[in-house]
Amino acid sequence: MTEQLSEAERVEALDGLPDWDNDEARDAIVRGFTFDNFSQAFGFMTQVALIAEKLDHHPEWSNMWNRVEIVLTTHDAGGLSGRDIEMAQAIDALVE
Amino acid sequence: MTEQLSEAERVEALDGLPDWDNDEARDAIVRGFTFDNFSQAFGFMTQVALIAEKLDHHPEWSNMWNRVEIVLTTHDAGGLSGRDIEMAQAIDALVE
Repeated sequence: MTEQLSEAERVEALDGLPDWDNDEARDAIVRGFTFDNFSQAFGFMTQVALIAEKLDHHPEWSNMWNRVEIVLTTHDAGGLSGRDIEMAQAIDALVE
Repeated sequence: MTEQLSEAERVEALDGLPDWDNDEARDAIVRGFTFDNFSQAFGFMTQVALIAEKLDHHPEWSNMWNRVEIVLTTHDAGGLSGRDIEMAQAIDALVE
């Protein structure tokens, strides 16, 4: 079972993820992405899907044409865990 | 510019799409899909994405592990149009 991040770990992790917002109500992190068109947005989603399968950790996400919103939380842990941070870092690396 | 469906056209079209719910507030149609796992869910999304590009008509959709929810409406038409019905039929054909 994955453990929820402590308050100190959360502060440190989020410090390294400036593009992600903390949804405190759900203990989740959220980031929106905008692309030039649907093809680029879905191409990005496909890359994220492959990472999700590799890490066995899956996002809650939505898409509307050129926009993608990704929410990361760990249901097993009842909130944000190290697995969300690892996933967020891998997603950030795709768009850097 | 695509035209919104008339009331009679809407009734007839939705009659042929029994698995879709009509979201009257948004004049959209909605269907949820459940698969065995994320890989199957995202495989389905990839098929839908290819159809969306081909028809140049894109869904608003979300995914959470094995579940996919698709909303179809035509922003240009201010509501449900024949393009949504065509898209819904093509999506239904994927899962029949």
